[in-house]
Amino acid sequence: MSSAAAPPTGGGVSSILPLELIDRCIGSSIWVVMKTNREFVGTLLGFDDYVNMVLDDVTEFETTPEGRKKTKLGQTLLNGNNICILIPGGEGPEA
Amino acid sequence: MSSAAAPPTGGGVSSILPLELIDRCIGSSIWVVMKTNREFVGTLLGFDDYVNMVLDDVTEFETTPEGRKKTKLGQTLLNGNNICILIPGGEGPEA
Amino acid sequence: MSSAAAPPTGGGVSSILPLELIDRCIGSSIWVVMKTNREFVGTLLGFDDYVNMVLDDVTEFETTPEGRKKTKLGQTLLNGNNICILIPGGEGPEA
Amino acid sequence: MSSAAAPPTGGGVSSILPLELIDRCIGSSIWVVMKTNREFVGTLLGFDDYVNMVLDDVTEFETTPEGRKKTKLGQTLLNGNNICILIPGGEGPEA
Amino acid sequence: MSSAAAPPTGGGVSSILPLELIDRCIGSSIWVVMKTNREFVGTLLGFDDYVNMVLDDVTEFETTPEGRKKTKLGQTLLNGNNICILIPGGEGPEA
Amino acid sequence: MSSAAAPPTGGGVSSILPLELIDRCIGSSIWVVMKTNREFVGTLLGFDDYVNMVLDDVTEFETTPEGRKKTKLGQTLLNGNNICILIPGGEGPEA
Amino acid sequence: MSSAAAPPTGGGVSSILPLELIDRCIGSSIWVVMKTNREFVGTLLGFDDYVNMVLDDVTEFETTPEGRKKTKLGQTLLNGNNICILIPGGEGPEA
Repeated sequence: MSSAAAPPTGGGVSSILPLELIDRCIGSSIWVVMKTNREFVGTLLGFDDYVNMVLDDVTEFETTPEGRKKTKLGQTLLNGNNICILIPGGEGPEA
Repeated sequence: MSSAAAPPTGGGVSSILPLELIDRCIGSSIWVVMKTNREFVGTLLGFDDYVNMVLDDVTEFETTPEGRKKTKLGQTLLNGNNICILIPGGEGPEA
Repeated sequence: MSSAAAPPTGGGVSSILPLELIDRCIGSSIWVVMKTNREFVGTLLGFDDYVNMVLDDVTEFETTPEGRKKTKLGQTLLNGNNICILIPGGEGPEA
Repeated sequence: MSSAAAPPTGGGVSSILPLELIDRCIGSSIWVVMKTNREFVGTLLGFDDYVNMVLDDVTEFETTPEGRKKTKLGQTLLNGNNICILIPGGEGPEA
Repeated sequence: MSSAAAPPTGGGVSSILPLELIDRCIGSSIWVVMKTNREFVGTLLGFDDYVNMVLDDVTEFETTPEGRKKTKLGQTLLNGNNICILIPGGEGPEA
Repeated sequence: MSSAAAPPTGGGVSSILPLELIDRCIGSSIWVVMKTNREFVGTLLGFDDYVNMVLDDVTEFETTPEGRKKTKLGQTLLNGNNICILIPGGEGPEA
Repeated sequence: MSSAAAPPTGGGVSSILPLELIDRCIGSSIWVVMKTNREFVGTLLGFDDYVNMVLDDVTEFETTPEGRKKTKLGQTLLNGNNICILIPGGEGPEA
C-alpha cells in the first residue's frame, strides 16, 4: 500500500515513524521475519532507503518440512523487498 | 490498482480518505491482516507514506496447518507492501 | 497493463472512466473482490489515487477449505493493490 | 516487458496500437481473461491509462474445482493489473 | 532485471535491439509464450512501449491437466507484463 | 534489491559491471536461466536497458514432470523480467 | 519495504550501509541466496545499482526434491530482483 501524499499528522498525538524505529535499533538486536520461510536475529549494523539491512552475529531460523533449522552467520545483508516484519529487541521464534 | 489522476470529488458527498482513517487511529487499537497467514492487533504508534506501520503491545495471530498460533510482541514494524486489510478498533480474528 | 499515453477518446461514443464509477458509489453499497480468498460488501466512504478504499458496515466473505466464512466488520480499509474487481451496488457472493 | 524508447514504426507497414484496439471497442462487447480463474464478457463502457476497465451487462465465468460457474453482474470495474488477455467481440469461454 | 544506464554498445559487433526484432514482425506470424499456461500464434498487428501486443488470426494453446486445448480467436490483445518469450515466425508448440 | 545511489567504487579493486559482462557476450553463446522452468542456450544478438534479450540458434530446455524437453528455435526474444541467471559461454543444463 | 526519505542517521552510532558491505566484498568470496531454490558461492567481480551481481568461480547449489545438486560455473550474472540474502565470506549451505 502506498500514498502519494504525506500522511497527515495526528493532531496532538505524538507518533513514531517506521524508519525512526529502525534507526533507534542500530547497534542493538533485531528480529527480522522474511516473506519466505526464513527469520533472522542479529545486531543491526545499518540500513538504507529500501530497508535493505546489514546484520551481524546472525542466527538464521529456516522453517522446513523437517522442522526448524538454526544456522549461525556473520555479517548478512537482507533484501528489503523480502522483509515482512521487524521486531526491535526480539529474540526470534524460539523465545 | 492505481490512477494517475486525483479522484474526482463526490459532489456534495463527504468522504474519508484512507490515510485520514489511519491517522485517526494513532494511539488506538488497530487490526492488521497481512497478505500472508499473519494478522496483528496492537496500538498504532505511527506510519509513513508506504503505510509501513509501527504497532505496540502487539498480539500476532499466525494461521498454521496445526491451527492458530498466538504470540505477544512489543513494538513491531509491518511492511506496508504486505498489508491487505486494516480494521481500526478491531480486536482480531478471535473477537 | 498500463499505457504511457492517455487513451484516445472514442469518437462520438460517451464513456465512463473507472474512477468516475467509483466516485459515484460514495455513500452507496459496493462489492469488492480481492485477489485473495476474501470479498467485502459495505458502504463506500472514500478512496484515494491508489484505489485504497474505506468501507463501512462491512460484511467480509472468506472462502476457506471448510466453506465460506461470513464476518461483520465496522470501518475497514482495503489495500488497492489487492483489489481485483469492484461491483457497485453488488450484494456479495451470496446474492 | 517494457521499453524506455518508443517502438520504432514499421516502415510502410500499418499497425494497430493496443489502446486503439480497446478504444474501438467502447460500446461493444469484449471478453476479458484475468490472470486468475475469472473471465468476463460485457459491454465496454470505458477504460483508463492503467487499462482499468468498466464493463456493463457482465457475465462472469469462474473456473472452480467443481466446474465453471456463471454469474450475471451489472456495471463492473476490473483492475488493469489483473488483466491478461482482451478479445474484442469475444463471447467468452463457452462460445 | 533492469539497468539505469544504456547498455554499452558492443565495439564493432552489430547487434539487434529487442524492439527492432518485434517491429520487423509486424504483418508476420509470431509465437507468444505467456507466463501462465497459455501460448498464442497469430499475425502481429501492433505493439506499444509496454510490449502489449495486438495479434490477428490467433490460435490459442492452453495447457490444462486434461491436455492441450486449441482455440481460434480473432483480434486479441496480450498484456505485455504477462509475456515471457516471443518467437518471430514461430508456429507454436505443435510445430 | 535496488539502490538509489550509485554503488561506491571499490578502492583500487577493478570490477566488472553486470551490463559490461552481457555486452561482451554479443555474438557469442550464452546460457539463460528463467524464473520459470525454462532455460535457453543461444547466440546473443542484442539486449536493451531492461535486459530483454535477443538470442539466435536457440535450444530451449523445459523441465516438465515427464523430464526435460529440448526444442530448437530460431531468433527468440526473452523478457528481462523473467530472467534469473545469465552464464556467458554456458552450454546449458546438459553440459 | 521502501522509504522516500533518507534514513535518519543514528546519532553517535556508526553504521554500515548495505552497498558499502557489498562493495567491500569485491574480489572476495560471497554467498548469495536467491528467492528460488538456488544458492551461489563465488568471487564477487562487480555489481550495479540494482544489485545485479557478477560472480566468478561459482558453485551453484540447487535444492531439488531429490536432494541438493551442486554445479560448477564460470562467470555468472545474477538478477538483483531475485536475490534474497547476501553473506560476505560465506561458504554456502554445506559449510
